[in-house]
Amino acid sequence: MLLFRQCRGLARVGLLQTHRPPPPKQLVPPLSVWAGGLCARGGSGGRHDSGARDHGHPPDWRHLFAAVLAGGGAVLVHGLLGSQAQQAATDVQPPGKNLPLPIYTQEEVAKHHSSAKGVWVTYKGGVYDITEFVSLHPGGDKILLAAGGALEPFWALYAVHNQEHVLEILSQYKVGELREEDRMLDSSSLDPYAKDPPRHPVLSVNSQKPFNAEPPTEILTDNFITPSAFFFKRNHLPVPQVDPSVYRLEIQGLPGGTVSLSLEDLKSLFPKHIVTATLQCAGNRRSEMNQVKQVKGLNWGIAAISNATWAGPRLRDVLLYAGYKSGGKAQHVHFEGLDKDVTGTTYGASIPLGKALSEEGDVILAYEMNGEELPADHGFPVRVVVPGVVGARNVKWLGKIVLSEVESSSHWQQNDYKGFSPGTDWDTVDFKSAPAIQELPVQSAITWPAEGAVLDHSLGEVTVKGYAWSGGGREIVRVDVSLDGGKTWQVAKLQGREGEASDLSPQPGRAWAWKLWELSAPLPTGTQELEIICKAVDSSYNVQPDSVAPIWNLRGVLSNAWHRVKVKISEH
Amino acid sequence: MLLFRQCRGLARVGLLQTHRPPPPKQLVPPLSVWAGGLCARGGSGGRHDSGARDHGHPPDWRHLFAAVLAGGGAVLVHGLLGSQAQQAATDVQPPGKNLPLPIYTQEEVAKHHSSAKGVWVTYKGGVYDITEFVSLHPGGDKILLAAGGALEPFWALYAVHNQEHVLEILSQYKVGELREEDRMLDSSSLDPYAKDPPRHPVLSVNSQKPFNAEPPTEILTDNFITPSAFFFKRNHLPVPQVDPSVYRLEIQGLPGGTVSLSLEDLKSLFPKHIVTATLQCAGNRRSEMNQVKQVKGLNWGIAAISNATWAGPRLRDVLLYAGYKSGGKAQHVHFEGLDKDVTGTTYGASIPLGKALSEEGDVILAYEMNGEELPADHGFPVRVVVPGVVGARNVKWLGKIVLSEVESSSHWQQNDYKGFSPGTDWDTVDFKSAPAIQELPVQSAITWPAEGAVLDHSLGEVTVKGYAWSGGGREIVRVDVSLDGGKTWQVAKLQGREGEASDLSPQPGRAWAWKLWELSAPLPTGTQELEIICKAVDSSYNVQPDSVAPIWNLRGVLSNAWHRVKVKISEH
Repeated sequence: MLLFRQCRGLARVGLLQTHRPPPPKQLVPPLSVWAGGLCARGGSGGRHDSGARDHGHPPDWRHLFAAVLAGGGAVLVHGLLGSQAQQAATDVQPPGKNLPLPIYTQEEVAKHHSSAKGVWVTYKGGVYDITEFVSLHPGGDKILLAAGGALEPFWALYAVHNQEHVLEILSQYKVGELREEDRMLDSSSLDPYAKDPPRHPVLSVNSQKPFNAEPPTEILTDNFITPSAFFFKRNHLPVPQVDPSVYRLEIQGLPGGTVSLSLEDLKSLFPKHIVTATLQCAGNRRSEMNQVKQVKGLNWGIAAISNATWAGPRLRDVLLYAGYKSGGKAQHVHFEGLDKDVTGTTYGASIPLGKALSEEGDVILAYEMNGEELPADHGFPVRVVVPGVVGARNVKWLGKIVLSEVESSSHWQQNDYKGFSPGTDWDTVDFKSAPAIQELPVQSAITWPAEGAVLDHSLGEVTVKGYAWSGGGREIVRVDVSLDGGKTWQVAKLQGREGEASDLSPQPGRAWAWKLWELSAPLPTGTQELEIICKAVDSSYNVQPDSVAPIWNLRGVLSNAWHRVKVKISEH
Repeated sequence: MLLFRQCRGLARVGLLQTHRPPPPKQLVPPLSVWAGGLCARGGSGGRHDSGARDHGHPPDWRHLFAAVLAGGGAVLVHGLLGSQAQQAATDVQPPGKNLPLPIYTQEEVAKHHSSAKGVWVTYKGGVYDITEFVSLHPGGDKILLAAGGALEPFWALYAVHNQEHVLEILSQYKVGELREEDRMLDSSSLDPYAKDPPRHPVLSVNSQKPFNAEPPTEILTDNFITPSAFFFKRNHLPVPQVDPSVYRLEIQGLPGGTVSLSLEDLKSLFPKHIVTATLQCAGNRRSEMNQVKQVKGLNWGIAAISNATWAGPRLRDVLLYAGYKSGGKAQHVHFEGLDKDVTGTTYGASIPLGKALSEEGDVILAYEMNGEELPADHGFPVRVVVPGVVGARNVKWLGKIVLSEVESSSHWQQNDYKGFSPGTDWDTVDFKSAPAIQELPVQSAITWPAEGAVLDHSLGEVTVKGYAWSGGGREIVRVDVSLDGGKTWQVAKLQGREGEASDLSPQPGRAWAWKLWELSAPLPTGTQELEIICKAVDSSYNVQPDSVAPIWNLRGVLSNAWHRVKVKISEH
């Protein structure tokens, strides 16, 4: 009964209607067909025998699916890594197969990314043709997001997959092995981006070189913590190759002279401080400004924002260790990355010294992201995480820290990442007239349903989901949602860390992580179209502005107007 | 309809439940029974005929009650002494009564102080048995506070009672005369507001008792520092008379027990810290919300905000002196004023401990305002100034400081000064669901020209002036001005402290004072009317919302939408 209700809920919110792949005819497979996934298969390559779709109850799947759905409002799941289950995937061979399977390159796998061309995925070095399984997938066609790429990051997000039953099913679709060198991409060429790490194909790419990409909206808020593979990527330059054994962090501008620290120093000399913080690109939602008037910059949607848990020493502790004394003239802390352009110029930015030194500022030199080594795209081996501050100051591949009386002179501090009046154009702009963006304003967006989605009228209600966040550690205290273009408003339910009651607030001024939110409300009657709007309020009671045009600015940053989504209601 | 909603709201927010008498069974009588209070009565002693509880609307009461409610969070009322109304109470005799009424002593009256023993009160020499009226009283059982005694001091505090309708009702309950020698003394000595200080007549008065007033818009921004006489006044209760020679500030909740400091202690034991800080009432610009839909509270214009220089010891220094040690459980600092209502309840509020202790928080116990002794209306001899935080936490006539694990339990912290969704009404509001306002959002308004002004076309240009400020020490970095209703925008010139260049910024996060601003621009041609708008941006790039309706809230606080002024251009 629980399962049935939840299934309808899943369909009700239009979960499947907003993805890039065409909508499936059948939103959720009836229980009776799920059994197909449990049947032994015959034939070469583990191809699916459609005759196996016999009737019967799939008790294990039912249990599994209920677990997926029970995980919370955002299809949250528990990270249960079953080593037994993993074993099954590598051991089990398709029945009747003894011959070695063919070897495929990642490139070949990537061609199979649609129902038309077949749906292939990789998992732990194996290649799987899951074309026939797509319609059987309890989670619907969300599975297509993985087409042509690796399953691992999805299963990290939807950890319910890490069960023996799932791996048994997967093993029956195995068609080959992934070429050894594609398991850890290492193509060498003169292209400065050639050594950029492999990325998950589900990402929506705004720029390949440098790599800038955001996750699909529909998975952005499925978990409080964004898996690293899906965390938005915002690179200004090629990803530098850093050998951790020779890595040094230089700290300059202190009375005792330059201090140089190894990665091991950072790990061993200081307490490890763990901070869950949302990072947002200043250009998040720039595409909405482009709709008003063209701006310069990457055409980000609403997903240039993600939330992760970071760990490393406090910058404060490192500075004190390095000899910082109060009373000096320094007012700013510069960060220089190891990423360079062709002229050798490194990426750089700075923050006010007060933020760096504050015990409550929680600025850390992170060497871990989500409990693992920092990924290459996120600054391996060390990045600075400046909670509550625009992504651009959270310098990755951190090579140097400099204390200074003045701000960083870098392009990104002086002539970019600043806000201007809508009346300011490229003829009149004076970059010196505006402060560098540090803390960001209050923000929120609707991740569900998507623009143009069709809601099922017969279900009688709609569930709207999204995220909200504000800079400077200001906690989100309320999200208002309108289903009628802003005439009337309802209050959404806020959700912080998994399992955390929304009234368990962080310390004042230290709310670094976003809040996910959800509103379920009756579908208005007598209309075939809804304009859904969200707007958030932070702990200083700052609110989002109503419309985009009055905050339009020539760089398309700080786009935080009410987020609006138009959807249709199906007729019945 | 409005009345009905407000009645229910009054009961819900616990307005009547926070006082000492036990909670009534029926907090607010339904409209239908109120009419009883207006009916003529028969029988001896004006006893109530329950048959008079017929149905009908009490139009005068409605007006009256709305006025009570409009008075602000603490059942503030307007002090309108109606001599005509007073006349009615002494003249009107119960219908059908010509015989002289019995004489009672005060002692006899005092015995009737409960529902069980009857509820008698005296008023101007008359004795009234209001037992039957208690359940009809629009203000709930607060009326029982007067049982056995004189009404005058209560009606002085809740001056809305001084209306003819009220006295007519009262007269019908007359049962006798008070013995001559027991009659109260000069009624002016009973007026708790009688000793309020004189105020400048230029002030625009929103409420006389308690005194609430704002300066005229056109002088508000004539000076970076607001002269104390023109600084907006926001009193919740009568101004207490404090003898500075016996004044003591008590500090409680510290490990070493209570510490008591004299005014001289505060002046001599600690460094004098000077802070220029803008204070703003949470209800500033409430009148614009009232234009959308009626809210409860004083109908402030745009001038419930002012800027002054304050001096006194840092609260941080005082707490450390008093024995504060880190690591305790305290999270909040309570402030109690010496201003009291008739029940002895003092004004109170609290702020987070972190703000109080922060070296950069600049919280001071001010004994000076603009270089002089603190004026009576602004908290003589000592008030707390909490820069960047809503006026309501800047407690005046400071009598007590308490460190606590929890916020102040005062009405003003718990059930007032909070923001809600526009969809929340008095039927649905849950005051616990919203945080107490501390830092205020970004704000700005146009002080020149005024609404409806006529600009001289022949001058060819217009100069627009105003103020801008944001809470939390966030500096104003830009003010945009539109002369065409928001279609196009120009950047105003900012002015900080007099003679201070706008690029001489305060330290990050410590911009406690407003910025005045000005824009001179050519008068648009081809139009006889301008809609002038301003909107400010703070250092976190928070902006003001476009319109009022979407931030409307039932208490009418946090009104910070774009400010709009319509002016005409003279034809020549």
